[in-house]
Amino acid sequence: MKRIALDMDEVMADIYAKFLYYFERDLGWRPEKKDYWGIKIYELEGATHLRKYLHAVGFFSDVTPMPSSQKVVAELQQHYEVFVVTSATEFRNSLVDKWDWLSTHFPSIHWKNYVFCGDKSIIDGDYMIDDHVSNLQKFKGKGLLYTASHNVHNKDYVRVNNWLEIRQFFQGELAKEGKTL
Amino acid sequence: MKRIALDMDEVMADIYAKFLYYFERDLGWRPEKKDYWGIKIYELEGATHLRKYLHAVGFFSDVTPMPSSQKVVAELQQHYEVFVVTSATEFRNSLVDKWDWLSTHFPSIHWKNYVFCGDKSIIDGDYMIDDHVSNLQKFKGKGLLYTASHNVHNKDYVRVNNWLEIRQFFQGELAKEGKTL
Repeated sequence: MKRIALDMDEVMADIYAKFLYYFERDLGWRPEKKDYWGIKIYELEGATHLRKYLHAVGFFSDVTPMPSSQKVVAELQQHYEVFVVTSATEFRNSLVDKWDWLSTHFPSIHWKNYVFCGDKSIIDGDYMIDDHVSNLQKFKGKGLLYTASHNVHNKDYVRVNNWLEIRQFFQGELAKEGKTL
Repeated sequence: MKRIALDMDEVMADIYAKFLYYFERDLGWRPEKKDYWGIKIYELEGATHLRKYLHAVGFFSDVTPMPSSQKVVAELQQHYEVFVVTSATEFRNSLVDKWDWLSTHFPSIHWKNYVFCGDKSIIDGDYMIDDHVSNLQKFKGKGLLYTASHNVHNKDYVRVNNWLEIRQFFQGELAKEGKTL
């Protein structure tokens, strides 16, 4: 079976919804997409402190799964080995939150297939779905770029805007082998 | 730089010293090496419950680094990218303990180079040092088998009994390139 390495934040988990909540709480206004499209939300004026919340206990514990992610992951698992490969070791307190979140929201993914790391260049796989170009650049397999505000100008990778487009991409891959998703 | 993937338990960290403590506490006698040589200590009669302690908060927090491991890791880092690749995701509560232990005892290893995983077949590297034959079997690079009670009969890999032998092995590798450790 071919192997898919799935990024967690901003691919499986809607981290920006949480950033928007904290932004509004701390700065008194709620930015729209156009305000931070092309950058990271914490690069907006007065918002640099938001990134520090990633270190807080609980930050990653109650984020919402991306629409259709659970359903499409279950479908992909019929044909692929699905690993979660998440940048977690920068944030000590994220480790348990992420473990709990995955076991709650994606129970079909075994703990054997969790990878909590820092530098993803150590990952050996066939596909990587990630919102960070820097992770895809170091990957030897095929990279899919999941759209996030900070990567909208990149044209080097197959772009996926949501999980239905991920499904569509792998439908195409499987069709080449005469299989259906 | 070539990359070394270092296992943590029983390679960097002396887990068996802790198992021996719990064994004696719970069973009233302290086994000698000959009693469990060839098996895992918790395969001894009456000791199967010991493996459950791996799930406890704090189990991994106060283990002792293997003799000379810190010094030799620092030397290796002059010539290699050193990653810690540890089977951790089976044990939710080990994650923070392992993060704290590494940052305390091996501060020269950056968090970017921690990998907390389950199935190590996803690791891409040049060398892997591990006490589990099953991890080395799936590895595409060169595997070094760190002696532990359960692997003493294996003859498929370069065997290292301690960190001075690890140093010696890499002295040999570097000498081929005209370098010294």
